Amino acid sequence: MKKLILPALCALASLPSTAFAQSNATSVSSRTNSHATGNDAIAAMRDAAMESDTLAYAITEGLTTEIGPRLAGTEAEARARAWGVARLTALGFSNVAIETYQMPTWIRGAETAEIVSPYPQAMHVTALGRSASTGDSGIRAEIVAFETVEQLRAAPMSSLDGKIVYVGHHMMRTQDGSGYGFAGPARWFAASLASERGAAAIVIRSVGTDNHRNPHTGGTNWAEGVSPIPAGALSNPDADNLERMVALGRPVTMHLTLTPQWLGDRESGNVIADIPGSDPDAPMIIAACHLDSWDLATGAFDDAAGCGIITAAAHRILESGAQPRRTIRLLWAGAEEVGLFGARAYAERHPAAEHAVASESDFGADRVWRVEFNLPDSASGDADRITSLLAPLGIPRSPIPATGGADTSPLVAGGVWAIDLQQDGTRYFDLHHTPDDTLDKIDPAQMRQNVAAWTVMLSVMSNSQADLGIPQTTE
Amino acid sequence: MKKLILPALCALASLPSTAFAQSNATSVSSRTNSHATGNDAIAAMRDAAMESDTLAYAITEGLTTEIGPRLAGTEAEARARAWGVARLTALGFSNVAIETYQMPTWIRGAETAEIVSPYPQAMHVTALGRSASTGDSGIRAEIVAFETVEQLRAAPMSSLDGKIVYVGHHMMRTQDGSGYGFAGPARWFAASLASERGAAAIVIRSVGTDNHRNPHTGGTNWAEGVSPIPAGALSNPDADNLERMVALGRPVTMHLTLTPQWLGDRESGNVIADIPGSDPDAPMIIAACHLDSWDLATGAFDDAAGCGIITAAAHRILESGAQPRRTIRLLWAGAEEVGLFGARAYAERHPAAEHAVASESDFGADRVWRVEFNLPDSASGDADRITSLLAPLGIPRSPIPATGGADTSPLVAGGVWAIDLQQDGTRYFDLHHTPDDTLDKIDPAQMRQNVAAWTVMLSVMSNSQADLGIPQTTE
Repeated sequence: MKKLILPALCALASLPSTAFAQSNATSVSSRTNSHATGNDAIAAMRDAAMESDTLAYAITEGLTTEIGPRLAGTEAEARARAWGVARLTALGFSNVAIETYQMPTWIRGAETAEIVSPYPQAMHVTALGRSASTGDSGIRAEIVAFETVEQLRAAPMSSLDGKIVYVGHHMMRTQDGSGYGFAGPARWFAASLASERGAAAIVIRSVGTDNHRNPHTGGTNWAEGVSPIPAGALSNPDADNLERMVALGRPVTMHLTLTPQWLGDRESGNVIADIPGSDPDAPMIIAACHLDSWDLATGAFDDAAGCGIITAAAHRILESGAQPRRTIRLLWAGAEEVGLFGARAYAERHPAAEHAVASESDFGADRVWRVEFNLPDSASGDADRITSLLAPLGIPRSPIPATGGADTSPLVAGGVWAIDLQQDGTRYFDLHHTPDDTLDKIDPAQMRQNVAAWTVMLSVMSNSQADLGIPQTTE
Repeated sequence: MKKLILPALCALASLPSTAFAQSNATSVSSRTNSHATGNDAIAAMRDAAMESDTLAYAITEGLTTEIGPRLAGTEAEARARAWGVARLTALGFSNVAIETYQMPTWIRGAETAEIVSPYPQAMHVTALGRSASTGDSGIRAEIVAFETVEQLRAAPMSSLDGKIVYVGHHMMRTQDGSGYGFAGPARWFAASLASERGAAAIVIRSVGTDNHRNPHTGGTNWAEGVSPIPAGALSNPDADNLERMVALGRPVTMHLTLTPQWLGDRESGNVIADIPGSDPDAPMIIAACHLDSWDLATGAFDDAAGCGIITAAAHRILESGAQPRRTIRLLWAGAEEVGLFGARAYAERHPAAEHAVASESDFGADRVWRVEFNLPDSASGDADRITSLLAPLGIPRSPIPATGGADTSPLVAGGVWAIDLQQDGTRYFDLHHTPDDTLDKIDPAQMRQNVAAWTVMLSVMSNSQADLGIPQTTE
């Protein structure tokens, strides 16, 4: 797929961009082509990004090589903040700052799973975030297998006393990431359901689309009043193997050891950086990513790449010398993976009303395949202009309204408008929350297309004359 | 590649096979089509295997599910032998037996690698077979990096005192497996070279073509008089990361812990099973695979699949009811990975002169893409007949002479003739000796093509009237 599409994109990008911009955007070009923030200037920035951006990759390379995994609340995340401040300052951004907050910090311990009988062999397991510990000696118990979360939910209370529950389910590979909504509940809710029903522990099939021996971590949630139990994910090949064993009909016993621990409240923080706008009264455009990662990998796709993409795009505007009307703010959020602590801390400190539009890059580094808007009618011209300027990148306008990303979700819930440059998620869940999320997975050509798309969106919106204030609800 | 080729193969296989066999093999059909071992009968067995063989997969599924990893000298390998005897007996083979021998047994311990400075983060490492131990507290030392084995060899003696050597090199993806010959020396010889030059330990880039966080194990060799040192392999993404760190120019310190140990001599063994031939004086046809695997995975590709393929092919001949002239012997060898102990034990017990032709399946389960022969002139008709009968499977005759496989190498060295049904190795070194070598990697359609090809080869050779005795050297 990638190989078929990119040459076409590259061929498009190498054509004189005005051929596309003029034919598609005649209605807006007359009033915007006359200055440095006009369509021709934006198209030129877009095409330069598409052809030769190296900054997004360099930031991703730096975070993954010089810092590595960046679990929220750890000193590695703190090093990443310092690295980010140094890099953003050197790039020429203004008001570069760390904004700290405290958050409960969970760290991984030992993690092993062995089938004890009737087919002794080791399996690859990883603890889910907020899992309880088995203690050093582990838990040895019979497996009770469910195919779906609904089947587990249907099991009577106390029916699973002392068992290790297994929930298998299969995640479908989808371009729009919708497979996550289907399979995700096994990670999000099954552990709590198993605990309510008396289980000693739970292992789920990894929520992921790959077939490597790399289990997918991620947070699990405990319902109010439910006691946390040890909760892990098996790699997909191990889940396959366990299902085959269960199908043979004899009782299957597992010895599971997971020894994560809570460290209490530790410091985390957001990194912010601005391109100040010329109109201090105009609400700003916020572009977000998250700086923390899960601990199993260097978080190249999730989400060093997002920080690289938004920063590289904003830096092109900074370097153009044309000051935007509205401030462009970069938010490299902390503590996203473990519960949006950075997002909430940001929203508590910065009122939603200071922001006009929120957008986030947090779905890897593969190409943007559609753009979604949630803007007031007064900004329909901006949306049309972005749509026209994205067309040469092969990006159509989606009929789906934008909903924003995780790190700006409190702002969007507070009424801030949103634009989503949706990335192709076809292979995202091969890598998501696994040890495999490393720099080699980044396709530089697709990453450049992201930077080009973001350059367009930020350029247009930071110069928008529309009323992008938060709408007053009338009750 | 796979998807393009298989429909074509399947289309060929579904045609009446005589259309191909008759046009290509006119010279032999007149004397062989008149009985149950004639070309039509063999083509029919071939096509049935291609269309519906399930035995090869079932054996692979059983070994990987019910036994799992089968490290030589361990009780898991012993369980695999018992499983094999039960299965081969149930299938109706004769003379099913375990032939045991003693061998020095090495087992894996803890294995961790951390960059301590200047970019603290964990890496994925695995010990190479015959590695020494670092002790529980590990070794902390500066990395000295070499791009190739030749560069390491050029380093003066004692120049690496106390260092951890890294050897990076890149293995090329090749269809014929020749990339292994190019990159393999880093695993086979670099540790010994590093020890000679004073190194405290060595980590190499995995000898493999994938980019997953799954390091490739495999044996390393200590030259005469060289003291073993701890020796590990980093996964390819970790090797990339370490190379980037080194390129940044500051000294890089690693903390490496590998605690494998030698258990002394333990029992291993071969499993053999026969289809007795009608002529007890005719040397037999031996078909080999290996039953042991490395300990990191369930050894589906390496080499449960090989045992499945040769056994399924032989079983088709057994089921046909037409007794072959020559005995067909299956050798499920033990202890291949750790040094061909099973192969040597077999050859010590069974004189080469009892064997006419040796062949082995030990390169995964992807399609056979060419056939190689090393037969006397008197058997040129057999080679032609096999070539004709393999053509409908898309398998051409290679000009390269057959050399046989690892588990029959002592026999071939002793003068036994060989036929190699060479498998496509394009993805073999993605999986080789990694945790990823699991059942899901088997493509049942390609596996069936292997069974079909083996059915042809065993059918023809077990009925060969040629003089296949070991040639007498005249000195």
